[in-house]
Amino acid sequence: MSNSIGTCFRLTSFGESHGPALGGVIDGCPAGLAFDHALIDRDMQRRHLGTHATTRREADKVELLSGVFEGKTLGTPIAFLIRNSDTRSDDYEALKALYRPGHADYAWQQRYGIRDWRGGGRASGRETAVRVAAGAVAKMVLQQKGITLHATLVEAPQPAENDSAGGIIACRIDGVPAGIGEPVFGKLNSLIAAAMMSIPSAIGIEFGAGFEAARMSGSEYRDNWRDDFTTQTNHCGGIQGGISNGMPIEFRTAFHPPVTIPQPTTCIGADGHLTTLTPQGRHDSSHVARTVVVVEAMAAMVLADLVLQQQHSPLH
Amino acid sequence: MSNSIGTCFRLTSFGESHGPALGGVIDGCPAGLAFDHALIDRDMQRRHLGTHATTRREADKVELLSGVFEGKTLGTPIAFLIRNSDTRSDDYEALKALYRPGHADYAWQQRYGIRDWRGGGRASGRETAVRVAAGAVAKMVLQQKGITLHATLVEAPQPAENDSAGGIIACRIDGVPAGIGEPVFGKLNSLIAAAMMSIPSAIGIEFGAGFEAARMSGSEYRDNWRDDFTTQTNHCGGIQGGISNGMPIEFRTAFHPPVTIPQPTTCIGADGHLTTLTPQGRHDSSHVARTVVVVEAMAAMVLADLVLQQQHSPLH
Amino acid sequence: MSNSIGTCFRLTSFGESHGPALGGVIDGCPAGLAFDHALIDRDMQRRHLGTHATTRREADKVELLSGVFEGKTLGTPIAFLIRNSDTRSDDYEALKALYRPGHADYAWQQRYGIRDWRGGGRASGRETAVRVAAGAVAKMVLQQKGITLHATLVEAPQPAENDSAGGIIACRIDGVPAGIGEPVFGKLNSLIAAAMMSIPSAIGIEFGAGFEAARMSGSEYRDNWRDDFTTQTNHCGGIQGGISNGMPIEFRTAFHPPVTIPQPTTCIGADGHLTTLTPQGRHDSSHVARTVVVVEAMAAMVLADLVLQQQHSPLH
Amino acid sequence: MSNSIGTCFRLTSFGESHGPALGGVIDGCPAGLAFDHALIDRDMQRRHLGTHATTRREADKVELLSGVFEGKTLGTPIAFLIRNSDTRSDDYEALKALYRPGHADYAWQQRYGIRDWRGGGRASGRETAVRVAAGAVAKMVLQQKGITLHATLVEAPQPAENDSAGGIIACRIDGVPAGIGEPVFGKLNSLIAAAMMSIPSAIGIEFGAGFEAARMSGSEYRDNWRDDFTTQTNHCGGIQGGISNGMPIEFRTAFHPPVTIPQPTTCIGADGHLTTLTPQGRHDSSHVARTVVVVEAMAAMVLADLVLQQQHSPLH
Repeated sequence: MSNSIGTCFRLTSFGESHGPALGGVIDGCPAGLAFDHALIDRDMQRRHLGTHATTRREADKVELLSGVFEGKTLGTPIAFLIRNSDTRSDDYEALKALYRPGHADYAWQQRYGIRDWRGGGRASGRETAVRVAAGAVAKMVLQQKGITLHATLVEAPQPAENDSAGGIIACRIDGVPAGIGEPVFGKLNSLIAAAMMSIPSAIGIEFGAGFEAARMSGSEYRDNWRDDFTTQTNHCGGIQGGISNGMPIEFRTAFHPPVTIPQPTTCIGADGHLTTLTPQGRHDSSHVARTVVVVEAMAAMVLADLVLQQQHSPLH
Repeated sequence: MSNSIGTCFRLTSFGESHGPALGGVIDGCPAGLAFDHALIDRDMQRRHLGTHATTRREADKVELLSGVFEGKTLGTPIAFLIRNSDTRSDDYEALKALYRPGHADYAWQQRYGIRDWRGGGRASGRETAVRVAAGAVAKMVLQQKGITLHATLVEAPQPAENDSAGGIIACRIDGVPAGIGEPVFGKLNSLIAAAMMSIPSAIGIEFGAGFEAARMSGSEYRDNWRDDFTTQTNHCGGIQGGISNGMPIEFRTAFHPPVTIPQPTTCIGADGHLTTLTPQGRHDSSHVARTVVVVEAMAAMVLADLVLQQQHSPLH
Repeated sequence: MSNSIGTCFRLTSFGESHGPALGGVIDGCPAGLAFDHALIDRDMQRRHLGTHATTRREADKVELLSGVFEGKTLGTPIAFLIRNSDTRSDDYEALKALYRPGHADYAWQQRYGIRDWRGGGRASGRETAVRVAAGAVAKMVLQQKGITLHATLVEAPQPAENDSAGGIIACRIDGVPAGIGEPVFGKLNSLIAAAMMSIPSAIGIEFGAGFEAARMSGSEYRDNWRDDFTTQTNHCGGIQGGISNGMPIEFRTAFHPPVTIPQPTTCIGADGHLTTLTPQGRHDSSHVARTVVVVEAMAAMVLADLVLQQQHSPLH
Repeated sequence: MSNSIGTCFRLTSFGESHGPALGGVIDGCPAGLAFDHALIDRDMQRRHLGTHATTRREADKVELLSGVFEGKTLGTPIAFLIRNSDTRSDDYEALKALYRPGHADYAWQQRYGIRDWRGGGRASGRETAVRVAAGAVAKMVLQQKGITLHATLVEAPQPAENDSAGGIIACRIDGVPAGIGEPVFGKLNSLIAAAMMSIPSAIGIEFGAGFEAARMSGSEYRDNWRDDFTTQTNHCGGIQGGISNGMPIEFRTAFHPPVTIPQPTTCIGADGHLTTLTPQGRHDSSHVARTVVVVEAMAAMVLADLVLQQQHSPLH
């Protein structure tokens, strides 16, 4: 099912942008963990501050519904809710029967034969709020293992006037012991790549030396050993054969610019008729600033899932 | 489990490089499909021809064990076997207690506490033979839907003397109707990215305009409509909101160079002792040529899986 | 994960008896289905009327959070909430440090090392309210396929004074076409059995002639054909080789009596100390009447899941 | 997918009765386990001795293909093969176009639109050989945890002349610590029930006091504590709230008699035409004797899976 991610630490996400609420259910969070609600609030605030120009004024409040008792996790599902408060749909009425260029409107309609056309519906970037909340819970799991994540904006072109810009976000994960990840199809890089590509507007990912590695010779590329099992370089991004090698995990994700811009835009109707209009209302000219914490959240969920899966291995 | 990929069309892969056999079980291939064994042979041959210098002389033979009756698939698991014939392990004896730089040896040992040190064991590139065979079966499923895949080597630096080289492989998938892919976590780009990163030596992937899109403005990037629902450009690589939009699916995967090269190599022992040796035997100075068909195979499995999942949707 | 059931039609359930709320997320319900909230209300009411003596006065209200737009399902997750209103925990204070006989208290504590001791927490029968709501959605899917379910109480001994009683519930499913179910491990009877055994107090299940079939000869047992592909008897309960054969699906589930009774009860403390007390408050002396609709709900989810999985097969 | 069972210890089974081979792939068996091939041979022999009258003379040989190196498991998939040697299909030619009463022929044909009509194909009881081999590996995992299984035939009516008989098999599992099993949908009894119902001819299952418990009062039924955390009775069969309580796990599975008997048998053709014939060849008049080891194998896989899943919990 496409609205769940993870095996042992598993988030099921729900909600449309302009419906009653968004939220999630985390199944598999270990029992007995001190639950740090402030960490959720802090990351929700980070996401909010990254938002340049939206109609939503305050960081979303995350209401906890289950899974925590007397400040500790129960091992039962942790469900949470984020109410949608400011959900005027008038702005979108004109777009009800039109597919915008670059948007998921058309592909979504072909997929389901129906869509909530208000503000992107389920395809809205608002859905990442759920990821940030769940990612904060994943960070609680990782903290007690000494694993920390840090994402930063490494390329963020200035949006041109009446235009928009994308960017590149780097993420570094420290404290991952050697031996995390599965061989063959469940490689650590496979899971991170899938998680990153699931973020709206993501269009590429590279680990360590990345695309540049394709142009290096083997003697330049390979990370030579030091006698403490660290390596002199980290071209592989901390992953070998799909398994962590004890060096920091390092990757970069590219995001394309927002496609809604205050310029004449040619939309297509269901009958193939082309209509040009200029989008009204406030739209972000860039989204990468608020995506930094989303990158961390997705990476945290992948790592928490693997760390929990592997707690019992190997048998030695 | 990390040795399976897919939900409806699901491959479970097994086998070590120097054990009795490698093979796979495909569960979920539809019943009643004409089984084209020649397609498997052709792709196994393509993989073989891409191999520059190995000790294995002929393309591997794929022995079918189940799931096909009177030339048609039964809807039951299709199991197949590839025997390992030339499995001298002497060459590897010296490496038994040493971890090579850039290899999965050390990470694997930390993961499992034990490993088959002969020729890479389960981490060997030989395991991709199983993927090619299963990918050919996926292509049989896709053929009847009019979906075709074509991968090509777009960057392949010449290996320097006594050194190795990586490269970049592009893949284009034609005939995918709009509406294939799942929203949120099961996005088409997420699944393709995970599949590509699972190929040995893969280190980056980008769709459509890729990393370059991070530097484009929204007005440059967005793919404007034509009145037949195609778009004037394909910067998004045929995927919007994680769902195909009817344009060709386009992506590029970067591979780092092989890390075993005929030069002095400093390995580390389990006790942290560094030892320098020069690898003997024949090793490929490049692997990208034979990886082209592996890229196709992995993409074919992802597409076959999604197409089968979605045959019944939408309800309109 | 143990709080989810189903593959294509998948419920994830959450909530503790005395926490803020219980609820569920249904992923995989087809898009474009007319959503009949009255069917949910009706089944919630049936569950409520089967409750003899509880402190909860009215049938629970099911609040819809996502997945439905303008009266139709969107194909996105359908999330719903049932608030806990009357959640006094004083009654349970005495049981905080004691394990009752026949209850899940002790096993649960061993499993998680922590538990919400108020009213059974997650192990409470109250959790079945979530199943009933989700089962009603599954019935919406089945209705349009012409599949109907009918469960009835076939054995319901009268509880003795100050004691409790269990019973047997039969369920019949009509309209299931031949060919539903998976061979080997995903048999229709396997999935129904798992679903039934997941209902609190379930202790046995039998299909068709059931345990009596073990004492029949082959000539008595086998269901002989009529020339319209129906059979003269239905000893197999409508399932052969794990697959429906077009006859009604028939099975019976046995439930043991409630273990909390208003009689002196010897509990055990974490230190092994035995303490005798007499449970206070109102407890049901029987739960089978309200379990009838839960049996239907679980069976409906199993069938909806399989019907959706198989919509695309076979290829003929 | 219906040909796999388990999450952490996962068997994928393949093969038709009269195809080249049957076999399985076990993914998730821990690394470093001493591999006891003699245990596989012993259980295959037990299955063989339970076979009264078949054309296969010797116990099947299990050929290991991967996952074991120098006598120990590698943590990689353990694949194995059982060749079909005596596969004359002439006996079945007459049945090619006919559906026998009580058999899966018709339901299977409706499910897939095609079937291997030779000897039951994939629906053959021969498939249980794969389960027995995999179950023996699961027993290796359980042995080191001190968990043992013992199944016995508790009811086995004598087959009448030219007729067949079913029976009831009891199974007892000792050494399971309290706390094994998942709440809600992944209950230990749910998983065992699903596994048992997946065995050909299984028609009912009951735990502990079983169907009789439906007629007991709560005061009779509930298992009272002793001060060592054992209970005075074991009416619940060692499972409370879906989780083991430290007492032996006890359940009974009912099997209906074989439906192929040497008596006139009315089959139906695809056109609805009824034809009476008398089955030729040797068929078992009872199968419960050889099913005893299959019951153990399936239970062993369920327990191994849960024990491995839960090795890391709880967090205390």
